[in-house]
Amino acid sequence: MNVVELIRKKRSGVSLPRAELQHLITGYVAGTIPDYQMSAFLMACFFQGMSEEEMMTFTELMLRSGEVIDLSDIPGIKVDKHSTGGVGDKVSLILAPLVAACGVPVPMISGRGLGHTGGTLDKLESIPGFRTNLSVSEYKDVIRRIGLVMIGQTERIAPADRKMYALRDVTGTVECIPLIAGSIMSKKLAEGIDALVLDIKTGRGAFMPTRERSIELAQALVKVGTAFGKQTVGYITSMDEPLGKAIGNWLEVVECVECLRGNSSIAPDLMEVTLLLSGTMVHLGGKASSVADGVSKCTAALRDGRAYAKFLELVEAQGGNTEAIEHLASYPIAQHSFDVKSGADGYVQSVDSLELGLTSIQLGAGRQTVDDRIDPKAGIILKKKVGEAVEAGEPLAVVYTDREEVIAAARERIAKAFVVGARAVTPAPLVQLVVDKDGVRSPA
Amino acid sequence: MNVVELIRKKRSGVSLPRAELQHLITGYVAGTIPDYQMSAFLMACFFQGMSEEEMMTFTELMLRSGEVIDLSDIPGIKVDKHSTGGVGDKVSLILAPLVAACGVPVPMISGRGLGHTGGTLDKLESIPGFRTNLSVSEYKDVIRRIGLVMIGQTERIAPADRKMYALRDVTGTVECIPLIAGSIMSKKLAEGIDALVLDIKTGRGAFMPTRERSIELAQALVKVGTAFGKQTVGYITSMDEPLGKAIGNWLEVVECVECLRGNSSIAPDLMEVTLLLSGTMVHLGGKASSVADGVSKCTAALRDGRAYAKFLELVEAQGGNTEAIEHLASYPIAQHSFDVKSGADGYVQSVDSLELGLTSIQLGAGRQTVDDRIDPKAGIILKKKVGEAVEAGEPLAVVYTDREEVIAAARERIAKAFVVGARAVTPAPLVQLVVDKDGVRSPA
Repeated sequence: MNVVELIRKKRSGVSLPRAELQHLITGYVAGTIPDYQMSAFLMACFFQGMSEEEMMTFTELMLRSGEVIDLSDIPGIKVDKHSTGGVGDKVSLILAPLVAACGVPVPMISGRGLGHTGGTLDKLESIPGFRTNLSVSEYKDVIRRIGLVMIGQTERIAPADRKMYALRDVTGTVECIPLIAGSIMSKKLAEGIDALVLDIKTGRGAFMPTRERSIELAQALVKVGTAFGKQTVGYITSMDEPLGKAIGNWLEVVECVECLRGNSSIAPDLMEVTLLLSGTMVHLGGKASSVADGVSKCTAALRDGRAYAKFLELVEAQGGNTEAIEHLASYPIAQHSFDVKSGADGYVQSVDSLELGLTSIQLGAGRQTVDDRIDPKAGIILKKKVGEAVEAGEPLAVVYTDREEVIAAARERIAKAFVVGARAVTPAPLVQLVVDKDGVRSPA
Repeated sequence: MNVVELIRKKRSGVSLPRAELQHLITGYVAGTIPDYQMSAFLMACFFQGMSEEEMMTFTELMLRSGEVIDLSDIPGIKVDKHSTGGVGDKVSLILAPLVAACGVPVPMISGRGLGHTGGTLDKLESIPGFRTNLSVSEYKDVIRRIGLVMIGQTERIAPADRKMYALRDVTGTVECIPLIAGSIMSKKLAEGIDALVLDIKTGRGAFMPTRERSIELAQALVKVGTAFGKQTVGYITSMDEPLGKAIGNWLEVVECVECLRGNSSIAPDLMEVTLLLSGTMVHLGGKASSVADGVSKCTAALRDGRAYAKFLELVEAQGGNTEAIEHLASYPIAQHSFDVKSGADGYVQSVDSLELGLTSIQLGAGRQTVDDRIDPKAGIILKKKVGEAVEAGEPLAVVYTDREEVIAAARERIAKAFVVGARAVTPAPLVQLVVDKDGVRSPA
């Protein structure tokens, strides 16, 4: 089979049959097809897309390039959640223990921060001692014992995706829906799940900035999940302003711990999304009669302390120091902290999550190159969210960093990210659409 | 400058400014930009094209990546010809000595066989001893002494193109007009020419199969040539059937020698194209008052033996054995030769030059991989051309090869390439259009 011919076929918009996709993926993983041919193929996919059948086969081949974890000997309907990523998106840290506390097992394989968005693994690792690099047997052991587990992608899971994702990242071929769907779903299908809830972020701080593209992506993900026999429900949620108030790894853990302890009022937007996704998972997991019933069960598990207890169990099971969680104030704080103040009276019109995400990286909360070390203490706490009233001189945000040299630039950038105006504004609805096998609709 | 950003810009159809193109090309030649990023960029160019300004800058940067040969100390207007390549296209071998015999210096840098089409270098090298790998100083010396020189691309000429062309060949990114124009023109502009005649082949056996794309390519080439201050004239000529009767390296040299000796009648189609291109070069070179006058001067130089004498001078100057030319019959012949006969009475309706080109490679006349050795004796002699009458059992072609194992397949393939039918047909006009700085028009 001639690789150039396959590239040319895709270039002209032809849908490749299984044998040809297999030749490409197997050869690429084995190293007989070089990066430069794969990147040309990927760019051709960017322009020509893939047929539905091709996307399914592509996902399956990525999945079968590695190990598919079998959790069938663990009782219950296993359900996971995936988010396409956003700024301040710490939903997984609350949702996983919450759903597990309601009796639904949650096997979760997460990623690291990417671009301007944070990563669940980086957040978990800000907890002293917390290990995310469990082996497959440890992974199975933890979920069997406590009903949830949160790890990173191992080398044995979807190695074709690992290699291809790294290539896409450096060749401008990330933003292609069938490639994204194949990448996300091959990893999720390898976890051993029975059902999946998806959080597709849309807006300024999201990977997919337009609503149309977010819907397309949600539909592709739901199609693949459904085709593989997994119940799959997607929500399109807003990422125009950051989710919750904290941006930065340990700062986000603290916000989650507060919410898990029942102080939902500190971040109502975060909890609105978290409860909807969690309630859906509890419903899909067969422990609630409807999504609404799932949400009530989750609310109860937060209120009576079961969710927080489950989180502590998780930290303990994965080697983390529960003392740091129990006594949040014992954690080291950043060398520098300062307020960014409003220059005017009025209402917060918008908060640019993309800018805040990028600024948090400068502060030390994310990586500029793969080898950068993250400073878990660094980040931003929003004091005002969209729609809130503010007076001139009142803080819009508090900033934490060890990097004295970035303070001036960060201050200016953050001030600009907040638009304050005279007009009273109501934030747009957070949950915009529901996408499942029956189609796209407004949330109930 | 971030390479991924540049790829994404091109991907979205933005025209890159000089500094960005320069960053890409310089980095690629230096090896700091890897093949996999360049191939993604090239595929994005395939889909998004380039603006006219971008194509000019691209060509200039490719040109300036290497040496630009200065022939200004050699008297006369130096004129070269470039063909986009076809099957049986041996025009250069007749044209170069013919134009030089008329007093116009011809500095020619040619290529090797590519895909189903032959290459001038391979043809010249079938002459025992003929050297095409002259150094730049030998190149200048030969043209100074005898008024023409024919060599291959040296490592010092347009190294960016050498590297990029090899990558395009294996990544399905060849068929992109601005990239083709940049590749062709950067090499031609490096030769030291003052004017250029282009032969853009169109039809079944051409690189550009449709007339529309051939016109587009011709216009791009003429634009670039003109922008660099070179008089540039392009002809779009038919490559539906092979040009002349011989396909295969030494077989084509023999056909050219016959024509150079004045036996034009053996290949009237070949000579029609050759005389038009040669006449145009003599006109551009200032040695004729019009193209028609140039054609008459060339006809005279063929008739009185000056063209043939110049060819012998060239062979001698580049180390070739003139005895082999003077006594064509002394050349070794292939181990196997056989006729392919017509199965029916009628007229030749069409001859598939693509198929004959591909079959000639199987016979040994071309390379299947870069490392293959060419058998100069192998090839096909057409006994019938489009429009000629043929009787059942009469030979359509004679085939030469040392490879016994391919005979059966080649026989069948060649028989199928000739369509014989009852209808009398007149071949389509060979020269279809003229393209120059004033536009596209029918030939006079």
